[in-house]
Amino acid sequence: MENNEVLKNTEIVSDDDLTEDEVTVDEDDLTENDELTEPVELTDKQRIKEYTRRLGNLQQRLKAVKLPVIVVFEGWGASGKGYIIGKLINRLDPRNFKVYAISAATADEKRYPIMKRFWAKLPEYGKAAFFVRSWYREVSLSRVEDEISIEELDLRFREILDFESQLSDDGYLIIKIFLHLSKDEQRKRFKKLESNKSTKWRVTKDDWKHHADYDKYQHAFSEMFERTNRESAPWFLIDAEDRNHATAAALECITNCVESTLEKREAGIGVPTQALEIRTSESIRLLPQKQLFEIDPNGGPFDEENYKADLKRCQKRLFELHNILYKKRVPCVIVYEGWDAAGKGSNIKRLTDGLDPRGYEVIPIAAPTAPEINRQYLWRFWTSLPRDGHIAIYDRSWYGRVMVERIEGFCTEAQWKRAFDEINRFERSLAARGTIVIKFWLQIDPDEQLRRFERRQNTPEKQWKITAEDWRNREKWAQYEVSVNDMLRYTTTEIAPWVIVESNNKKYAHLKAIKEVIRRLEEEL
Amino acid sequence: MENNEVLKNTEIVSDDDLTEDEVTVDEDDLTENDELTEPVELTDKQRIKEYTRRLGNLQQRLKAVKLPVIVVFEGWGASGKGYIIGKLINRLDPRNFKVYAISAATADEKRYPIMKRFWAKLPEYGKAAFFVRSWYREVSLSRVEDEISIEELDLRFREILDFESQLSDDGYLIIKIFLHLSKDEQRKRFKKLESNKSTKWRVTKDDWKHHADYDKYQHAFSEMFERTNRESAPWFLIDAEDRNHATAAALECITNCVESTLEKREAGIGVPTQALEIRTSESIRLLPQKQLFEIDPNGGPFDEENYKADLKRCQKRLFELHNILYKKRVPCVIVYEGWDAAGKGSNIKRLTDGLDPRGYEVIPIAAPTAPEINRQYLWRFWTSLPRDGHIAIYDRSWYGRVMVERIEGFCTEAQWKRAFDEINRFERSLAARGTIVIKFWLQIDPDEQLRRFERRQNTPEKQWKITAEDWRNREKWAQYEVSVNDMLRYTTTEIAPWVIVESNNKKYAHLKAIKEVIRRLEEEL
Repeated sequence: MENNEVLKNTEIVSDDDLTEDEVTVDEDDLTENDELTEPVELTDKQRIKEYTRRLGNLQQRLKAVKLPVIVVFEGWGASGKGYIIGKLINRLDPRNFKVYAISAATADEKRYPIMKRFWAKLPEYGKAAFFVRSWYREVSLSRVEDEISIEELDLRFREILDFESQLSDDGYLIIKIFLHLSKDEQRKRFKKLESNKSTKWRVTKDDWKHHADYDKYQHAFSEMFERTNRESAPWFLIDAEDRNHATAAALECITNCVESTLEKREAGIGVPTQALEIRTSESIRLLPQKQLFEIDPNGGPFDEENYKADLKRCQKRLFELHNILYKKRVPCVIVYEGWDAAGKGSNIKRLTDGLDPRGYEVIPIAAPTAPEINRQYLWRFWTSLPRDGHIAIYDRSWYGRVMVERIEGFCTEAQWKRAFDEINRFERSLAARGTIVIKFWLQIDPDEQLRRFERRQNTPEKQWKITAEDWRNREKWAQYEVSVNDMLRYTTTEIAPWVIVESNNKKYAHLKAIKEVIRRLEEEL
Repeated sequence: MENNEVLKNTEIVSDDDLTEDEVTVDEDDLTENDELTEPVELTDKQRIKEYTRRLGNLQQRLKAVKLPVIVVFEGWGASGKGYIIGKLINRLDPRNFKVYAISAATADEKRYPIMKRFWAKLPEYGKAAFFVRSWYREVSLSRVEDEISIEELDLRFREILDFESQLSDDGYLIIKIFLHLSKDEQRKRFKKLESNKSTKWRVTKDDWKHHADYDKYQHAFSEMFERTNRESAPWFLIDAEDRNHATAAALECITNCVESTLEKREAGIGVPTQALEIRTSESIRLLPQKQLFEIDPNGGPFDEENYKADLKRCQKRLFELHNILYKKRVPCVIVYEGWDAAGKGSNIKRLTDGLDPRGYEVIPIAAPTAPEINRQYLWRFWTSLPRDGHIAIYDRSWYGRVMVERIEGFCTEAQWKRAFDEINRFERSLAARGTIVIKFWLQIDPDEQLRRFERRQNTPEKQWKITAEDWRNREKWAQYEVSVNDMLRYTTTEIAPWVIVESNNKKYAHLKAIKEVIRRLEEEL
């Protein structure tokens, strides 16, 4: 099926959006075979039956190749989105899919980055998510209601494209269906719904308002198709004037997309595993950054005598700034990366001693759990982001993708090479919301690490802090150095630059980090 | 430490609730040992240091015996809850605890049963959750603001006691601390906060209003202590006029509770593993219910000819009722339990064919995942409850506790015996919110099961539905029969009775279940 094809060969006009006579009965039991008695009208019905059956049979194959599927249903009010989804899930095992009806963001959702609530609904590999309205809902509404500027609109589309392309790159199949209705037909359906006691409440004032603005919405939708119709996540326009025809067309479209993608995956085609070079977006400006060999891990001059007074003064100031941040509802993300035993924990401790425990969270990142492994790797970070006014401190972070996952082969070369840009875009999304993003690399030299490892080994209360894995990682110092240098080179962006914290001297490091946080907060608040 | 002991020996009056001079510096690094130079004032400070250190050292032991800890901080506004928590977490690994600051329920949270948001914050076994305000917040607020009736108040306290006692029975250690301030002292602190530019906004109109109502709140708090001070979750009243003294007292109290509980657990005492008989609350009325041998799985008379028309009519009616349910925002929970191959899936299917896919969810319950195993068993059900106006259909449910978990020994005898009452209370919580709870037991006989197993085995598309485990379970038919009979006997309550669905004839079963749903919805809407 071609994109943007509007199916025009409708035969009968039928009412829609779940009026009572739309309730369908799954007439066939799997053990029966009913005769179809009305041949002319039933062509579409037969197609529906055929496609639901095929979709049912595809489930095991989806699981086998771990193909995740996202289907978006957008379209005019009363175009029958709910009805079609009812058919779509007819033969699917409830374990394999979820249906999400998207309405306006709740007050709670509004306190997080805009795309977070959609990231949170990501299906696991091998499963499906069906959206009745989606991330396109608010962008089209605000477009017509004129709440947003052109810059804001650009931003929204950019966020959507980032979201869809990153998922597609990760192997997600994204199918977007738009159900089209003429203005006349929409009016008829609203009237019909209103005439029925049990469905009357479904037609709201807003629905009639949008109906009156039909032409403006038409324009907004066209713009939306134009800006977001990509090979990786195409739009399919379906004429919804005839209910059965539209249902058959939607199911055919979905079945075909899934089947053809499955065939490719089963043949090992479709998910690139190699990439020749690291590419970063031109729209994200990289800043120059030192490489590890250029850094003196001992740091600069340090006033040992005044350390405590200095630190105390910094924590007081930080406390004031935390109050302002909370009051102004600005979110803040602080990332700690660094060598094993570089002192992330104690550095974070000095920082949090200056914070109100009700307004921050330390998020320690360990090996991913099952639900995390079974989704795009940024999922767990999107879903753990801080609310506006809160600080999230990540003890290790999404940079694991380009360090441990790269070195241990937990992801493919193509994946880690793509990750630099994905991460920059992720951080740009945060910054676009006003999130202050601060990233620390805690640098020590191998000798200092050895001293600390040995001290841990020899101090009974600290022995749990040192494991065989730490020693193994130490042997890979050179490999890590290459990875860290790439990370510093490709992810030191204008919006979220890396700050090197020379950490051979812990006290020097404590002061440098806390002063940097203060500087950034003062600058941005 | 005794319960309800108010520590009166305060020395100095200090300001509180996170004014800037409260920011504390963790003066000691683990490698250092600072001289304490002001002996008189520092007694409490030394105690604080000692207890934070001891708490830090307890973490590994908590993990070892998998003891989960919940600490609640309630108290007057500006009594220093945040400050004390800051000290409490001083030496704790962020992986081992979470801090939750509880404010008014969001609009979204209000669409779920009242205790759901607290269940959702349950720590895993071996970890801790610290609450700044808690489930007591709203009950004390509404008490004074007079929004709730005595009946409503009784209900709230009952929900709280159910929550705490079920967790305590499951091995959770619950410590509730109340920080007391005199009216004068509170006024002083508010004034102090207001005098500082960066903390001024923290004192709201509501704070002053509550201050004016000090005596009423005093009364509400006393009532709260009286009604919720149980051995399983005691209150500790701490005088908060002196900041350091209060902090030391709170930390001492927590440390002692944790240490003494740990000692018991390490000695294998404290979590009962045997219970002699099944007890159910007198306040929950059980209805008479048939035992399995009294049921004819073939059901009653059945009009085969009109099945399709009947089913279609029922689905239409159900659709109308679903609309009303949605509009009236009434939540509904439908539980399907039954023998393997009793036809739960196809029965659910006939029901959902009559529902709007945007307003229901089928929740298949399989073996618990890691986060589920590591918490009280009802956690995963509390957190999956439907929003008001939505229907959740459980394909298997919390009754696994008294069937498979009982039979396979996944829980202790004491646990499954206690579960009948816990489940009744859980369902009463749902009903108290107006949730319609419908429970189906799908009954077939062993011969019918064998026929269906063999048919599955011999039909290629259905082979995935039958596993070795199904055959093993079949061998345990007699054991299951005992369990099911107990379940029917002890959990057929007035609010949530079991409905037997005779399922040897699938079509008969489809109609019986859907008609029962219609009957209940008509009755309750």
